[in-house]
Amino acid sequence: MADLELMSRLSDEEETKILLVVLDGLGGLPMIPEGPTELEAARTPNLDALAARSICGLSTPVAPGITPGSGPGHLSLFGYDPIECLVKRGVLSALGIGFDLQPGDLAARGNFCSVDPETGEITDRRAGRIGSDLGARLCEKLNGVQLEGVDRVFVEPVKEYRFALILRGEGLEDGLTGTDPQETGVPPLPVKATRPEAEETAELVNQWLEKAREVLAKDAQENNHPANSCNLRGLAKEPGLPQMPDVYKMRCACIATYPMYKGVARLAGMDILSTGPTIEDEVATLKESWEDYDFFFFHVKKIDSRGEDGDFNAKAAVIEHFDEVLPDMLALEPDVVIVTGDHSTPALCKNHSWHELPVLLWSRYVRRDDATTFGERPCMRGGLGHINHVDLLPLAMANAGRLEKYGA
Amino acid sequence: MADLELMSRLSDEEETKILLVVLDGLGGLPMIPEGPTELEAARTPNLDALAARSICGLSTPVAPGITPGSGPGHLSLFGYDPIECLVKRGVLSALGIGFDLQPGDLAARGNFCSVDPETGEITDRRAGRIGSDLGARLCEKLNGVQLEGVDRVFVEPVKEYRFALILRGEGLEDGLTGTDPQETGVPPLPVKATRPEAEETAELVNQWLEKAREVLAKDAQENNHPANSCNLRGLAKEPGLPQMPDVYKMRCACIATYPMYKGVARLAGMDILSTGPTIEDEVATLKESWEDYDFFFFHVKKIDSRGEDGDFNAKAAVIEHFDEVLPDMLALEPDVVIVTGDHSTPALCKNHSWHELPVLLWSRYVRRDDATTFGERPCMRGGLGHINHVDLLPLAMANAGRLEKYGA
Repeated sequence: MADLELMSRLSDEEETKILLVVLDGLGGLPMIPEGPTELEAARTPNLDALAARSICGLSTPVAPGITPGSGPGHLSLFGYDPIECLVKRGVLSALGIGFDLQPGDLAARGNFCSVDPETGEITDRRAGRIGSDLGARLCEKLNGVQLEGVDRVFVEPVKEYRFALILRGEGLEDGLTGTDPQETGVPPLPVKATRPEAEETAELVNQWLEKAREVLAKDAQENNHPANSCNLRGLAKEPGLPQMPDVYKMRCACIATYPMYKGVARLAGMDILSTGPTIEDEVATLKESWEDYDFFFFHVKKIDSRGEDGDFNAKAAVIEHFDEVLPDMLALEPDVVIVTGDHSTPALCKNHSWHELPVLLWSRYVRRDDATTFGERPCMRGGLGHINHVDLLPLAMANAGRLEKYGA
Repeated sequence: MADLELMSRLSDEEETKILLVVLDGLGGLPMIPEGPTELEAARTPNLDALAARSICGLSTPVAPGITPGSGPGHLSLFGYDPIECLVKRGVLSALGIGFDLQPGDLAARGNFCSVDPETGEITDRRAGRIGSDLGARLCEKLNGVQLEGVDRVFVEPVKEYRFALILRGEGLEDGLTGTDPQETGVPPLPVKATRPEAEETAELVNQWLEKAREVLAKDAQENNHPANSCNLRGLAKEPGLPQMPDVYKMRCACIATYPMYKGVARLAGMDILSTGPTIEDEVATLKESWEDYDFFFFHVKKIDSRGEDGDFNAKAAVIEHFDEVLPDMLALEPDVVIVTGDHSTPALCKNHSWHELPVLLWSRYVRRDDATTFGERPCMRGGLGHINHVDLLPLAMANAGRLEKYGA
């Protein structure tokens, strides 16, 4: 693996364009062992024609056997070591609701819960799964809680009993434990620092919890609802990743429809282009902004969604839908095209899985292999062999003529 | 990747012989997408027959997407991590002219330049590309410049306006910036230390520069030529690599015709055998010294040269030329043969490239694959799969029975 420092040293500004298409959850499995995968079953004449002109392979998002969440699955595609650069749940939770996280922010995932008013012991970790309306009202109330030692506190509703807490200020430190004991009959845990530098921040968060719980206890009593306390998990700082435009000397754009993917792209330093909800909208955005960027991250969400539904045919249908717009994208004449996914989501599993991703890489400078269709099995015998997500962007950079020679 | 310390622990003296053939710039590309590569187009019955008895694959010299210079491309073939062991331009420049660099030497690449005598600003970074004769005379003159604090100063002509500066003495330190501002209209920069340990060395080099520039200014005025100053770049110490004979318990020899490759081999601790300019001369040298060494690095340069010319047919012709002498080499009955290159140089690119190298490994103990010809596409499906240069020498050692079992 080439590291970001080496990339930064070798990368050059050039007039070439790279298109990275991420079909979320693309990798699949046959429903019966001898059957096709979703991608193999889908009618994809345009992807097949592109695969025939490309070099293909299977790519591991994080490491063999590791099922990635959306964060690591994308960060590795953007060239970051997904183990070194783990983005924690608190940050992803904030990104997932479209919160504009700033460098230095500390974020946590919050859950409203129920505690016994006498003993303080947790009686329901999800506060009877209260509705989103009540959750939102409670967040609004908690937004009024002031905290000395930070500039701003944001409490943002996520869904039902879930919320996001963001502290903004100088000197907030990573390395904090959560408060949820993961069982009932015991009180919430205090936030603790796992490294000495974080002790002050732990103290701040505990102060916020004390105040927030007072507000919630009072509100629950007055309005007769079960959300009389809360827990925090996954406390983490905005990771301060090296920014793609600096590392790769490219103007980088993200075209995606869901907040989570826009958020991860923003962590990496991409510009987030505003676009509509359909694949066609995304293609229109790609066309409009084609001249303004060197690198495009083009994200198609619904393939993953149908995989999580366990709906093999519906997942194949979204792949076919993407195949129909592919010629319009290729008509823009990118110098390098990569098509792959961030992780597999086989309908058979109804969930993310650890399986490798089919990947195709096209440029003028690839050595074609024998693959004439795009699918897991042709890719298994492809010329890229078994590769890692983190190596795809360096390869794209090389094929775009954007990397200088290393050493004399 | 097995590291050198492990190799050193496991390696044993044995009566077996390893032949590493490096066809410089071997990897290629088709000129039209569906065409053959240079190696595939070349008529190579002997390489094909050897490939059929071997295990084949594609090998990455440094990392995916990284285009290696000759230094990293060879060091990885000799088992050194090419990122950890980057050999800088100053050292390679000295090696390239056959200078006998010693451990602890500090080397720099020098350029004669023109400066405005009044302001000291650079007016021509290459001194009007003065001829090699004048360059050599100026080097001779600079060789007379004494410098307190070092044992010896060598100023060696390279070509035209380029020279190599080597300081020899105790306590010289790495971590120095160059003086060339890469533009005209500004004066040369002073050498600066990038780490505190190098400050004394920076001061020494700046003293040399002051004296050298005085000599050049005087000579330019007296003899009316434009080379009235000079710049230094790529200042670096001889890297002090672990020596192959110690690590691998092998007597190691280099057969190469160009100073650069002999130089890199010497850095690795090989004996440099004197040989003539043709491939036949090199084979004769191999025969003569066969009994005296366990490991031979056999280098064929012209394949790369013709690739850099962009001459597909001429590159294929040099490969065919090598193929003709291969039976004479195999008649020596080496126990292990590896044929590969240090990097790709596709005629299509007219330059080094990032593409993987075809590689074949023959010994009594390989598992043969289906490859019956030697070429990029058969190797793509070869039994070695996708491998890294740095892993080839450990594999050769194992096939030569020169590595003990690891652990009980």
